[in-house]
Amino acid sequence: MPNNPAINSKRLKSLLDAVNSFGRNPQTGGFNRIGYSDPDLRVRRWFADTLRAEGLSVSQDGVANVFGRFGPAEGPCIMAGSHLDTVPEGGAFDGALGVCAALECILAMKDAGYAPDIAIEIVATAEEEGRFGGMLGSQAISGQIQRTWIDQAVDADGLTLVDAMAQQGLDAYSALSCARAPGTIEAFLELHIEQGPVLESRNIPIGVADSVSGVVNLGVRLEGRANHSGTTPMDLRADAFAGLAELGAALPSIIEQHGDQQTRVTIGKVELQPNFPHTIPGLADFSIVIRDSDAALLQRVVEAVRDQIVAISSRHSLTATIDERSRLAPVELDTSLVAILREESDRLGSPSLVMPSGAGHDAQTMQALCPAALIFVPSRDGVSHAPEEWTDWSAIDKGANLLLAALIRLSRAKT
Amino acid sequence: MPNNPAINSKRLKSLLDAVNSFGRNPQTGGFNRIGYSDPDLRVRRWFADTLRAEGLSVSQDGVANVFGRFGPAEGPCIMAGSHLDTVPEGGAFDGALGVCAALECILAMKDAGYAPDIAIEIVATAEEEGRFGGMLGSQAISGQIQRTWIDQAVDADGLTLVDAMAQQGLDAYSALSCARAPGTIEAFLELHIEQGPVLESRNIPIGVADSVSGVVNLGVRLEGRANHSGTTPMDLRADAFAGLAELGAALPSIIEQHGDQQTRVTIGKVELQPNFPHTIPGLADFSIVIRDSDAALLQRVVEAVRDQIVAISSRHSLTATIDERSRLAPVELDTSLVAILREESDRLGSPSLVMPSGAGHDAQTMQALCPAALIFVPSRDGVSHAPEEWTDWSAIDKGANLLLAALIRLSRAKT
Repeated sequence: MPNNPAINSKRLKSLLDAVNSFGRNPQTGGFNRIGYSDPDLRVRRWFADTLRAEGLSVSQDGVANVFGRFGPAEGPCIMAGSHLDTVPEGGAFDGALGVCAALECILAMKDAGYAPDIAIEIVATAEEEGRFGGMLGSQAISGQIQRTWIDQAVDADGLTLVDAMAQQGLDAYSALSCARAPGTIEAFLELHIEQGPVLESRNIPIGVADSVSGVVNLGVRLEGRANHSGTTPMDLRADAFAGLAELGAALPSIIEQHGDQQTRVTIGKVELQPNFPHTIPGLADFSIVIRDSDAALLQRVVEAVRDQIVAISSRHSLTATIDERSRLAPVELDTSLVAILREESDRLGSPSLVMPSGAGHDAQTMQALCPAALIFVPSRDGVSHAPEEWTDWSAIDKGANLLLAALIRLSRAKT
Repeated sequence: MPNNPAINSKRLKSLLDAVNSFGRNPQTGGFNRIGYSDPDLRVRRWFADTLRAEGLSVSQDGVANVFGRFGPAEGPCIMAGSHLDTVPEGGAFDGALGVCAALECILAMKDAGYAPDIAIEIVATAEEEGRFGGMLGSQAISGQIQRTWIDQAVDADGLTLVDAMAQQGLDAYSALSCARAPGTIEAFLELHIEQGPVLESRNIPIGVADSVSGVVNLGVRLEGRANHSGTTPMDLRADAFAGLAELGAALPSIIEQHGDQQTRVTIGKVELQPNFPHTIPGLADFSIVIRDSDAALLQRVVEAVRDQIVAISSRHSLTATIDERSRLAPVELDTSLVAILREESDRLGSPSLVMPSGAGHDAQTMQALCPAALIFVPSRDGVSHAPEEWTDWSAIDKGANLLLAALIRLSRAKT
């Protein structure tokens, strides 16, 4: 090719700024492109127009995934991208960066006069953030949507997926006919911010995910007796918070005994009743989210947490109810794509770290359809899903050039 | 005297039922005679009328304490009573029982033709439950109200004491001129439900309080970082709930090391932020209420809790703010009254237990003006401040007869 394709960071930044002109809340600095909201649909129309203006072959499927094809009109493709929707008051990089980086790779190829042997398709997936409880866009592409799920999917306000999509002129049941045929996508590559502190803390610009952690979400209720805090001796209490505190304090030793370095256990939501300073809590409702990239370890930790809840409840005269609200199994990403990303990263002189992904991403869904891989760039202070979300542009440049190198390598005819 | 005075339990029950016809919520079975509410003022008018009808000399002071005098019109008195106000959705016995029992004692004396050498005054105190943060009625009688306190006293809804009393035609500043002179009350006796499980658990019908626990109310904020529960390794977290849990789990050993059997430490109110299952809590705001009947031990436990918060915050990378919201010193009740109540209880054949009071009562306030004592009767399941509040009438009969015996003994001319 005439020139060596290279990322134009300035242009990539302009693309990201353009995406983030949609749904910005000037009061908070946060972004609101909730799946199937007006700003979400507007940014998709703008993105499709932008792809069209760059000469790509553009399509949108029934769930509003936007595709732009570069290279041969026929045959399989290499797909790259991420999502354009955000959580409420989300940050500037989550999802949007991966979509813009994929487009910037095509623009860099065009600048350099590079013509791929295998087509490259950019994708801006829909509803990745789980407003309706799934990753609808990539699940539709990979054929993982069930009619029964569509029937019952609602958001936190009780609005059904069917109604929310209908308000945007979309038919939720079209998700059943969005699946790409096996073999038509040879590989899926996603660049994403890490959303955690590991890369920053180790001063490594690139992460290559080899797996995505499984998640078990338990809802627990401990029920005791709400009595007067002054008149009830310590040994005659059934203090629901005392039980919860003992569980929280036991988590580190549970992880040490049954988990590994990748185990994460979080008590994030707690509601006490009656929640008065002078009354012993009679009720504690709380969440425990348990994650691990190893399915067997995940199950061992879940069982140890359950056993601990039972033991503590008995010691504190509490009644425990444990409800498994959701469970996602861990996903192994494609080994050969991990190896390719490591090699290309080395060739570019960018240090990289193979790591599990603690958060869920489209790549894990796509892995069910085709080999998939996930490139991480560092998140300042590990912060995401907040206006403070930030990644240094020097790291973004390295990550986008790695995506570019991998796309070039994968889109060349096998010799 | 012609007959031996004895409590008429049936009449006492009718009196209590009559009081509880005011402020009853038929939906919940709870009672709502909040200090200076309409039902509170209505029950006071009814009670004053009832005393008058029984031939007592009735008065009401500026804060709506109602008094009924039996016996000599001149000279000091023995005072007995409790409060008629309730907490929101309170129980049938808290306060009301002590007022009704004092009146039943007078009626029993009248039945038996007993004429006291020293007058007996019944009191139905006002605003004991602390809607405005104090025990206004008994504090006014014992001369413990300051003008600056009246100036700033507000309820939980932000209504000022001055306005709330004005709405009932009362002048809050009249509290400054309600004080009885030292020496005019020779003793104060209060019958009250225990509001705790000790008597019931030991199957003893009578408690004689020798002290009232002091209370230190700490408001604590632990501040960490709200990060993603999947992407943030356990060792890179600043998890505010993890710190709180460790503190909660450490309380039993703090009590064992620094407190005694009477120490009570309660974390009753907890608010996390952002309080989402999948986010590490960045902020934990919570209350710690520490009680002990021994001032030195109370202080030692408070300091140990503070030290523990500092140590835990350092281990968990948290910033701790500790705010001492209120502090009430322990009160020693009158030793010779305790001895008299024990003797009379023995004489009546009622087993009794000397114990501290974990809750606050008018008797502790009155102790600043005169010798004061507190008789407890058992609370079923230790429950109070709730519609389920209950005391068996066999125990009430024993408690009221003890109050009667003590009033007769104290109202006789010293020989």
